[in-house]
Amino acid sequence: MRQLHGGQSGEQLVRAVQDVCPDFATMTFEWALGGIMSRPGLDLLTRELLLVAACTTLGHVVPQLRAHIASALKLGATRQQVVETILQMMFYAGGAAVANALQVAGEVFRTEGVSEERHS
Amino acid sequence: MRQLHGGQSGEQLVRAVQDVCPDFATMTFEWALGGIMSRPGLDLLTRELLLVAACTTLGHVVPQLRAHIASALKLGATRQQVVETILQMMFYAGGAAVANALQVAGEVFRTEGVSEERHS
Amino acid sequence: MRQLHGGQSGEQLVRAVQDVCPDFATMTFEWALGGIMSRPGLDLLTRELLLVAACTTLGHVVPQLRAHIASALKLGATRQQVVETILQMMFYAGGAAVANALQVAGEVFRTEGVSEERHS
Amino acid sequence: MRQLHGGQSGEQLVRAVQDVCPDFATMTFEWALGGIMSRPGLDLLTRELLLVAACTTLGHVVPQLRAHIASALKLGATRQQVVETILQMMFYAGGAAVANALQVAGEVFRTEGVSEERHS
Amino acid sequence: MRQLHGGQSGEQLVRAVQDVCPDFATMTFEWALGGIMSRPGLDLLTRELLLVAACTTLGHVVPQLRAHIASALKLGATRQQVVETILQMMFYAGGAAVANALQVAGEVFRTEGVSEERHS
Amino acid sequence: MRQLHGGQSGEQLVRAVQDVCPDFATMTFEWALGGIMSRPGLDLLTRELLLVAACTTLGHVVPQLRAHIASALKLGATRQQVVETILQMMFYAGGAAVANALQVAGEVFRTEGVSEERHS
Repeated sequence: MRQLHGGQSGEQLVRAVQDVCPDFATMTFEWALGGIMSRPGLDLLTRELLLVAACTTLGHVVPQLRAHIASALKLGATRQQVVETILQMMFYAGGAAVANALQVAGEVFRTEGVSEERHS
Repeated sequence: MRQLHGGQSGEQLVRAVQDVCPDFATMTFEWALGGIMSRPGLDLLTRELLLVAACTTLGHVVPQLRAHIASALKLGATRQQVVETILQMMFYAGGAAVANALQVAGEVFRTEGVSEERHS
Repeated sequence: MRQLHGGQSGEQLVRAVQDVCPDFATMTFEWALGGIMSRPGLDLLTRELLLVAACTTLGHVVPQLRAHIASALKLGATRQQVVETILQMMFYAGGAAVANALQVAGEVFRTEGVSEERHS
Repeated sequence: MRQLHGGQSGEQLVRAVQDVCPDFATMTFEWALGGIMSRPGLDLLTRELLLVAACTTLGHVVPQLRAHIASALKLGATRQQVVETILQMMFYAGGAAVANALQVAGEVFRTEGVSEERHS
Repeated sequence: MRQLHGGQSGEQLVRAVQDVCPDFATMTFEWALGGIMSRPGLDLLTRELLLVAACTTLGHVVPQLRAHIASALKLGATRQQVVETILQMMFYAGGAAVANALQVAGEVFRTEGVSEERHS
Repeated sequence: MRQLHGGQSGEQLVRAVQDVCPDFATMTFEWALGGIMSRPGLDLLTRELLLVAACTTLGHVVPQLRAHIASALKLGATRQQVVETILQMMFYAGGAAVANALQVAGEVFRTEGVSEERHS
């Protein structure tokens, strides 16, 4: 069975507000994230990297950035792909956003036990 | 010879400020965009799609969004890949940003003569 | 018959990208705007004023700001309610965002023929 | 006696920088927040909901979001009004901003002891 | 007589919304811009350069950026000081914001007839 | 020997991601921050104050704001110069951004032992 959002963390972030607004989870899973991620035209890994790019650019959605980096790794992304995705935001999001996102990525790499050898 | 930034439009945007700040073009081509885009770890098309994602999320960098959509198409992206990249920003950038970026994409598709049949 | 999004302008903005991404209009009308605006708990006018607040704060979604101001007026908002909604953003969105939004409001007031007497 | 900013939390946030910049509190209370909130044209509760909308959209002003949700509740807002205000930001602020704001709202509801029955 | 906001352009931007919200000009001149700019501790030119930095970083307040660059020049800033102020935003605002602001600066330099020789 | 970025804190922020992306530190020191800060046309203290302005405006880059305030103080800035720089952002960044940045400044003043007497 394919996990649409690629991991429990992303789901948990949405479930956390279940009691505050029960419809929000439905909206998110059926439509905003779930519904869009299952569309044809782009593979799931590319979609996760695009979400890593979006979260890096926004800057203040740290828990979501963490969740999408973890999802990308679970879908088979290498450390290098995640790092290059974040680095590619340099010109548009600026260096502070990139530095902060790289730090989050380092934490996820350690938590998920992704060794440096896997880098490329 | 490979065109690093994938098209003249992106280059022209940077060249436009050559007389105001001559070093800016050097900085951008050698480092911020050129230098990063030529790194290993992600192919050039994925990098352009990531830049389309960044510009969609920022919202106010319309000329740059236009340039990166055109670059992505020149690198072989389909209409569908561009559209799905923009749509994927829905949850983070919001619907207004997506609507505006889709409108820009439509203009580039018409200018570049990318027919709808090429859509997947 | 109640007009969910309160006028043609808002709808036209979404319809403008119909040929680029046919599903986007469905998504927006059924879910993101339409679906949310028809929920109980807040009346439609308050919801439109909240959207005017959001567009003022974001700053770069000018066509959408224009559409929501027009919608609010059609739902019975006074000039004053629109102006005060924008002014209330001063502390969070800053003065430039407020100045720009007030200018847009002035244009909509003239287009829609909302006389100053209606102010208060 | 009417409480202008609707509660101590908002005031405390401003007072916290009193020693760093004594004039800032005066500016804020007389002008930017206090002065604007006491203007005619919109009732105080609507103004607080507009500020909840602004803070949700900005995303990184969490202490202020918390303060305005608490103020809205003190002014008589129901849980549902607060939740719908946040949810209404979906199309413009995006889902991550809404998810984060709903989580903050949930915390304030628990702190303020606003039971779910009051919802609607 | 010292011109507080350093030029007519900045004033005109605020006056443009005089009929929509008469109090806004008073607020801005007495408090938000005028009141703050006349405070001791920083000279007026440094304050204008700080506003150029803020407008470059925000990205979508182009008319205001134009006004503050013109004000800085009128206060005696060199082309180079304006260019370096904008360039300094590279790490935080990113390259697209810098490119767009440099382009605006180039337009103001031409309009105001600031020759390149004055550069340094 | 002149410290380019004016203190260890700024450098440490970049070094923190050294293991995640070794090239990022080189990029930042040679180019984005280091390279730009050592350019002629603006003195180092003015450049640090411009970075304090940028970080205040962005709002979510708190560790970087802290580092640049500390750097400015080490370069000889007075408390008042730092406070006025932040306050000057009021019209563009809004009051919440200013309040948060003033609070960070207060923490740095206490950590660095900058007494109030130095204020002016």
